[in-house]
Amino acid sequence: MRDIRNVLTTVYYKEEDLRKLAEVFAPAKVIHLRRDDDEGIQEALKTADVAVLGGDLDKRFLQAPLLRWIHCDHAGLNKCAWPEIFERELIVTSSAGRSAPALAEHAIFFMLNLVYQYPRFLDAQRAHQFGVPGQSELRGLYGRTAGIVGLGHTGCELAVRLKAMGMNVLGYRRSAGSPPTGVDRLYCAENGDTLDELLADSDFIVLAVPLNNATHHLIGRRELSLMKRSAYIINMARGAVIDEEALTEALYAGQIGGAGLDTFTKEPLPVGSPLWDAPNTLITPHTTPQVPDRNLRSIDIIKENMRRYRAGEPMLNQLRASDIYTPDQEEDKVGEASNVIQIPDLDGVEIEELQITDDVYSTRCTFKELFDNKEAEAVLKKYFGESFREKSRYSTSQVFTIDNLVDMAPEYFPEKLVFVLNKELTKIKK
Amino acid sequence: MRDIRNVLTTVYYKEEDLRKLAEVFAPAKVIHLRRDDDEGIQEALKTADVAVLGGDLDKRFLQAPLLRWIHCDHAGLNKCAWPEIFERELIVTSSAGRSAPALAEHAIFFMLNLVYQYPRFLDAQRAHQFGVPGQSELRGLYGRTAGIVGLGHTGCELAVRLKAMGMNVLGYRRSAGSPPTGVDRLYCAENGDTLDELLADSDFIVLAVPLNNATHHLIGRRELSLMKRSAYIINMARGAVIDEEALTEALYAGQIGGAGLDTFTKEPLPVGSPLWDAPNTLITPHTTPQVPDRNLRSIDIIKENMRRYRAGEPMLNQLRASDIYTPDQEEDKVGEASNVIQIPDLDGVEIEELQITDDVYSTRCTFKELFDNKEAEAVLKKYFGESFREKSRYSTSQVFTIDNLVDMAPEYFPEKLVFVLNKELTKIKK
Repeated sequence: MRDIRNVLTTVYYKEEDLRKLAEVFAPAKVIHLRRDDDEGIQEALKTADVAVLGGDLDKRFLQAPLLRWIHCDHAGLNKCAWPEIFERELIVTSSAGRSAPALAEHAIFFMLNLVYQYPRFLDAQRAHQFGVPGQSELRGLYGRTAGIVGLGHTGCELAVRLKAMGMNVLGYRRSAGSPPTGVDRLYCAENGDTLDELLADSDFIVLAVPLNNATHHLIGRRELSLMKRSAYIINMARGAVIDEEALTEALYAGQIGGAGLDTFTKEPLPVGSPLWDAPNTLITPHTTPQVPDRNLRSIDIIKENMRRYRAGEPMLNQLRASDIYTPDQEEDKVGEASNVIQIPDLDGVEIEELQITDDVYSTRCTFKELFDNKEAEAVLKKYFGESFREKSRYSTSQVFTIDNLVDMAPEYFPEKLVFVLNKELTKIKK
Repeated sequence: MRDIRNVLTTVYYKEEDLRKLAEVFAPAKVIHLRRDDDEGIQEALKTADVAVLGGDLDKRFLQAPLLRWIHCDHAGLNKCAWPEIFERELIVTSSAGRSAPALAEHAIFFMLNLVYQYPRFLDAQRAHQFGVPGQSELRGLYGRTAGIVGLGHTGCELAVRLKAMGMNVLGYRRSAGSPPTGVDRLYCAENGDTLDELLADSDFIVLAVPLNNATHHLIGRRELSLMKRSAYIINMARGAVIDEEALTEALYAGQIGGAGLDTFTKEPLPVGSPLWDAPNTLITPHTTPQVPDRNLRSIDIIKENMRRYRAGEPMLNQLRASDIYTPDQEEDKVGEASNVIQIPDLDGVEIEELQITDDVYSTRCTFKELFDNKEAEAVLKKYFGESFREKSRYSTSQVFTIDNLVDMAPEYFPEKLVFVLNKELTKIKK
């Protein structure tokens, strides 16, 4: 392998993390840029051998002359899984596994809240009522059967936990071999096994597969019809692994017991989606309470991959040709929501769609009905000054960026913005 | 040991369970009576050698001439832990451990919902809102420290689960010895260890001790003050293990991170208790979704104890002198709520206290303000016929029993009753 001299990173690293990353690549030079610094990135890509990205790659990276290895600092590579990667012989790796313990916890969180029917207990607490009807009929997880579809990092972490909880654990994966720790019975696609038996025997089915052309709509009408009427489905994979329309029908028809969903075909889940109110369905917004040392866990993966890169060994979490994902569905191409606040309607103002997205650098504010509303722009400019600027415009929407809010109170600024919008947009519309 | 010839049981067994129990005691004769069959029980106690009770024992059992062994078919013996038991050399055992896997799950349910701040996500779902402010700041269980106080059945089951979830597990128990599986660091009272270090180092403190004179108010002001400000306390033991007043203060003052509570000093938790609305506090009504084979698991314990009884070996879950619990607090003497529905107020009618309790045999309906209200009695009689009868009366309350409802729709009849009361009592009061 050619020497690594220049590394570009756009991950939002703290100083200490950045120092650790520089150690991994030493003596190469590490350039740290903001994700939205288009000019800087363009310039850096002229000499970069490696890119460590805080997000997905795009076409610019395919054209960088020296680039050999791109690390995307999150788990799912489905949005980078293009055939061109393999034509160009680019190495693309991910931080998959970094958050696997947290994702396994998230599945258990769903399983427990589903069997507890927890929303009913919370309502009872809020009404100061001790007990809910039928509570003595509830059953826990112990002694029941869980089927894990996909035995990567998350699936394996989950198997160990569910086994410790006294469950019977079934597993399904692509490759043959002996079952991972905690899996009582393994089904392998390579051995000709189908999902059917796992679907029919499980009280809980947890999806933990990567999204690719083979797993797109893996769970559809037929698969849902094989499940027990009392069984729950839990999606810790990507939304498009389930045919959402079929799932919605099955839930409303009581054909399955319920669902725990953290991901959706379209994110943020549209306000009008019937999934929000589907029976026995718990929804979380593609967000999992994290492991305590997320960045350091990623850097450990990068470090091990640096060793393998130098040694010419196969790398961890490397994109393979079987991961290619080229959905024709327009709906599947939407971005991943990292931290999105949606406001169904503003005080006294009806807005067709308003969405505020914040990431570590900026707040983006997109609205449709107010497209090209100079008055709205003026109000927002008044509040946010020069840091408020138009970012881009499409046929039906306008995106604004508000830069400096990140320094004010990162975790709360969406609320502040909402407050301002509530107050001022009302006036504009009147 | 003397031969066992007659066994009395008042557990609500199905036919199959009862056959299994008879096998355990064969060739002894097993008499199956309802818990409220006072006459039958009185008669049976004249010859019974063993009693297997669906509830706690009372003074009648202390006077039974041949009775040698009483098995109470639940986990906590605190309400049977009288000095007279030991004077009479009675053997008292419990079904402790039967539900340990379920109780361990319940602790994890609390831990996850506390770190997820789940009520906020549920509210967001109900508002069709994708995301809550500050969600990226949340942290999961992985890598954090849990302190388990009490390493009996539940504590040990929990340790194994939390270890599998990648937590650092501290344990505290009375007896010295090597740590149980899953416990990284063990503190023992017999070695002179105090609780202090565990309290100071844990992110989650789970109480799983039996209630006795040594554990009454084990967690008080001083102990709460030793906890991290971010730490959560979870009570899977009995309510009186915590000084509830001190806990309430600590929660409202933000002195600790929050609490998950399934048991209370007074149950049902009074409608006016400040705990209902305490910050970051999740309340469940002394109810845990069960293991699938609860009765059979109990019978296994009884079977093993029968073997030990015959062999003269120490028995499982036997009440020891150190378990004696003689609180002077009147509040601690209230009954255990098995399945209670409380109605804060009826439609348009203010009632000082109305409480409907159902168990497997009957519905009891207690009210205070309506004491000796002949009109109310007449309405209820009209609806429920002969099966509605006065059960007992005290200075301030009257208890009615409604027998036949159990055959109608066991899990729903409280609602039906509420409906009737709502409708008819309104008229009476007007």
